[in-house]
Amino acid sequence: MSNEPATLNAEIDRLRLELHSLQSKEGVNDISIGNYLLNRLAQLGVTSMFGLPGDFNLGFLDLVEDHPQIDWVGNCNELNAAYAADGYARIKEGSLGVVTTTFGVGELSAINGIAGAFSEMVPVLHIVGVPNTVQQKAKPLLHHTLGDGRFDAYGKAAAQFTVLNSYITNKVDAARQIDQAITACITQARPVYLTLPMDLVYPKISSEQLKIHLSPTPPPNPALKEDFVIDIIHQRVTEANGDVVVLVDACVMRHGVREEVKQFLKETGFPVYAAPMGKTAVDENYNRYGGIYVGSLTPPHIKDKVENAKLIVSIGSLGSDFNTGNFSYNIPVSRHIELHSTYTQVQYARFEEVGMKHLLPRLTERLKSFYPVSSKIDVPPFVIELPNEQDPEILHSYFWPRLASFFKPKDVIVAETGTAGFGILGVPLPANSVLVSQILWGSIGWSVGSCLGVALAARDIGLGRVILFVGDGSLQLTVQEISPMIKKGLKPILFVLNNKGYTVERLIHGRNRKYNDIADWKWTALLDTLNDGNKFETASYTVNNKQELNDLLDKPSFADTSKIQLVEVIMQPLDAPEALKRQAEMTSKSNAG
Amino acid sequence: MSNEPATLNAEIDRLRLELHSLQSKEGVNDISIGNYLLNRLAQLGVTSMFGLPGDFNLGFLDLVEDHPQIDWVGNCNELNAAYAADGYARIKEGSLGVVTTTFGVGELSAINGIAGAFSEMVPVLHIVGVPNTVQQKAKPLLHHTLGDGRFDAYGKAAAQFTVLNSYITNKVDAARQIDQAITACITQARPVYLTLPMDLVYPKISSEQLKIHLSPTPPPNPALKEDFVIDIIHQRVTEANGDVVVLVDACVMRHGVREEVKQFLKETGFPVYAAPMGKTAVDENYNRYGGIYVGSLTPPHIKDKVENAKLIVSIGSLGSDFNTGNFSYNIPVSRHIELHSTYTQVQYARFEEVGMKHLLPRLTERLKSFYPVSSKIDVPPFVIELPNEQDPEILHSYFWPRLASFFKPKDVIVAETGTAGFGILGVPLPANSVLVSQILWGSIGWSVGSCLGVALAARDIGLGRVILFVGDGSLQLTVQEISPMIKKGLKPILFVLNNKGYTVERLIHGRNRKYNDIADWKWTALLDTLNDGNKFETASYTVNNKQELNDLLDKPSFADTSKIQLVEVIMQPLDAPEALKRQAEMTSKSNAG
Repeated sequence: MSNEPATLNAEIDRLRLELHSLQSKEGVNDISIGNYLLNRLAQLGVTSMFGLPGDFNLGFLDLVEDHPQIDWVGNCNELNAAYAADGYARIKEGSLGVVTTTFGVGELSAINGIAGAFSEMVPVLHIVGVPNTVQQKAKPLLHHTLGDGRFDAYGKAAAQFTVLNSYITNKVDAARQIDQAITACITQARPVYLTLPMDLVYPKISSEQLKIHLSPTPPPNPALKEDFVIDIIHQRVTEANGDVVVLVDACVMRHGVREEVKQFLKETGFPVYAAPMGKTAVDENYNRYGGIYVGSLTPPHIKDKVENAKLIVSIGSLGSDFNTGNFSYNIPVSRHIELHSTYTQVQYARFEEVGMKHLLPRLTERLKSFYPVSSKIDVPPFVIELPNEQDPEILHSYFWPRLASFFKPKDVIVAETGTAGFGILGVPLPANSVLVSQILWGSIGWSVGSCLGVALAARDIGLGRVILFVGDGSLQLTVQEISPMIKKGLKPILFVLNNKGYTVERLIHGRNRKYNDIADWKWTALLDTLNDGNKFETASYTVNNKQELNDLLDKPSFADTSKIQLVEVIMQPLDAPEALKRQAEMTSKSNAG
Repeated sequence: MSNEPATLNAEIDRLRLELHSLQSKEGVNDISIGNYLLNRLAQLGVTSMFGLPGDFNLGFLDLVEDHPQIDWVGNCNELNAAYAADGYARIKEGSLGVVTTTFGVGELSAINGIAGAFSEMVPVLHIVGVPNTVQQKAKPLLHHTLGDGRFDAYGKAAAQFTVLNSYITNKVDAARQIDQAITACITQARPVYLTLPMDLVYPKISSEQLKIHLSPTPPPNPALKEDFVIDIIHQRVTEANGDVVVLVDACVMRHGVREEVKQFLKETGFPVYAAPMGKTAVDENYNRYGGIYVGSLTPPHIKDKVENAKLIVSIGSLGSDFNTGNFSYNIPVSRHIELHSTYTQVQYARFEEVGMKHLLPRLTERLKSFYPVSSKIDVPPFVIELPNEQDPEILHSYFWPRLASFFKPKDVIVAETGTAGFGILGVPLPANSVLVSQILWGSIGWSVGSCLGVALAARDIGLGRVILFVGDGSLQLTVQEISPMIKKGLKPILFVLNNKGYTVERLIHGRNRKYNDIADWKWTALLDTLNDGNKFETASYTVNNKQELNDLLDKPSFADTSKIQLVEVIMQPLDAPEALKRQAEMTSKSNAG
């Protein structure tokens, strides 16, 4: 068992909480249920809550508006609010995103955003204001109901996309239920659904339990089993003579092991590569980092390095089609070790309950002796070349390398599914920058709502500029969420890749089909139209060619992001990053069956 | 049993279809499954299909785009697409609305729109393009999945809001499943979910079955039971000496008995009133029509007339809170008869299977002898007075009466939940005009998507101007759907009631709370910003006071709707129609519990 104080303290708190709720020692009833919930969230660093008012959550929103640590972000619609909560949680690792909606109409609009958080393992708490407990029992034909008395239908739908549905129905269990709900959300890094009836917002309960904090740190691994796993991994690394390559993926970020991984890499000297969803889990300017591995879509000089290692250690991997070059990893099980949040896989053997959070520090200790050998393994530098193209038009082959020199340390980059999500993969990003992308769920429009949450979180924890890349087609789905960005004084740069429609779909099927066309909006009028009564300064630009792009990127007043800015980038309907073209071809083939 | 030829023919077709599929007489395989589905929809008068492309539906969209009778309406997002399909179905009574989305991400975004159609009984078919049958079995970690192999999660969520989920999995059953799905949708007037795998779009099946048409006409009532019900109703009317009041509601429109009701009223001479959701089910200029009955919120002169009748016959009623003045009908069961789509309720007795479609013509025959008495019952004229207000500002008390004289026969009016939905209730609408409103489900933003579908349907069947009333808060949820209106050359008038936020919420709770504020967009820039590259003429206006409103409404070039127009109406944040103020007060009280 780990001897890390943080782990031990978390375990002690968990046990104390369990004891406390069993003893049901009633303290003074000094805090409303609503504020108990809000204080729990504040303890975990939640500073923004997303959502919309609706008549079943208004009482709760009074408490939110009055809460000293939590700011209410009024979104334009619930799907966008869920996306924003997802983006917020991705940036504030160890905390969570929270979205509050109203019964039926509000909560159902959010469901795709919640499902995306489930799929991509993002801790989002969905609080739903519901009818009071008397109505819940009598089931009258209220507005926002299905007209047939099925008050449980929404929860049943929600349950498909959460790790826990918790329905508060009385005062006595409220604190325990809230603690359970939040704990499930942060430890499993997945959505939880929590209903709060109108008449259970203000009743007072004891605040005693709030003294014991909730923690995302998972329980310790079973000690003997963990020892066994460490021995066996050590043995495999020894057999491989330290010829190990590490592959980091999404769950390094989602399950809070960024620091453990950094230490592991530093002390062992192992070369490291990232899967697309793991990009920026390790600083891309780290000298032992070699770029992105994505199966058969990987550039050959990287592919060889990864696939020829005697042993590949994957950390937090997520083997989806787009994350693996359509399942084209060329890594035999016999040379593969996988560390996950709740289990470890060594070749063909699966060790349940041995999670990476506590395993990694011990592995570091055990494997650092390989440093002298491992640190000598060659890692190709991860760079991108600006091509010498004569053509004035902005092609993806030029755009992404050009952006590479625009990015700065601590930048936060949000990339929409499609051309942006693929284009950004090849760009080496600066130290302490973060990439946010939704590669598995791939819901177009997600990046815009997400960008709002990302920007609020980034401001909160002192990250730098927020830069969104979104296609014109995707932006149409969620465009109104630019408005809260402006209203909250955020200053992202929004690059709108105007390629006249759904380019990613065109590449898969229907290159010249009308269903892949969209209306050609006046993109540069958006910030002005969606501003809050001209209160905020905005700037919009169109770049038609390479020269205009370069001029803009080089302008200090643009790069310093002193206001919110939108850049319409004129591109070709059928142009795309090479990797996307190849992925689309493979998708098209597998779709055909 | 009814002897109406339409009923008998529908029954014959149903039996022939059943026989046909049992005999599984294989014809020549001459039509693709995708086109079989599209031809079925075209037979029922479907001319527009809503939705978005996604990589699992692209093959099917080729067929849609190439279909001679069906036009693909590319929406901006799936929720809006579902709203549009809902609006389309509401106008094209007897037909259905169709929305096509892609697996996971697309379909889940639409779910609130589908739930609304379920709640309000609107026939919407949701076609979902899903992975091919091989993938459905192997369940690989595809994009748009939850990452855990649960390919059935989306269908399970959808099933909460449909009368049928149908998953096409093979060629042999495809035609039968399609026919069942569409039949369930149009006869029950509720959503159906139909999945179409990528590899089952193009395989050919026999078109033989298409020769037998599908029909929304319900099966005949059991003959003896129907006779019994007619006798008993006749007896009750006799006991009441013909002192009967008829109350029409939503299902008159949804279950296609508009004509039957018209005939019933004409031949019996009974006075008629409408519930809010039944407004325009009967022409409001019909001389025996007395306006809206909504329980305790009803103006006294109408309330007395309805509640003092010896017998009240409700047709197609839907007793939701907002539709009944918060359940304040003062109509004892002993004086109440209710005709529904699948049963009849006479006082305390419920007669299952006796539906109104076939019952009404026979009741007309049986009760027309009461005409001499019933036609003499006084019906107060349904009028609205323009108040003589000195104040220049536009109050709801002035706005709605003023609009009354702007409306023309055949206008189609779409009213958003909130101030608009309540304000329009008191306005007598001209002959053959239609009101579309979502009073039970009440999802804000619905009216904008819906307006798109309404406008396409109205154009299709030769109705007149389409006029939307939406609040600024609601418009923010779904604003992008103005874009397809423009792109399709539609010319609605969009009245945006700018009252600086969610007024309906303010009235319920949090009058001056910030969570009820919204960003103050440049509303009159919307049409220009969302236009398709300036291709279409648009016009936008702001009216700040009564004079400006009058000037605009009187301008022939405005009233003739030769282009799409947006009118920003400046109103007060806390002003609302009287009925809404009183409803909000009641809602606030019952919410508190």
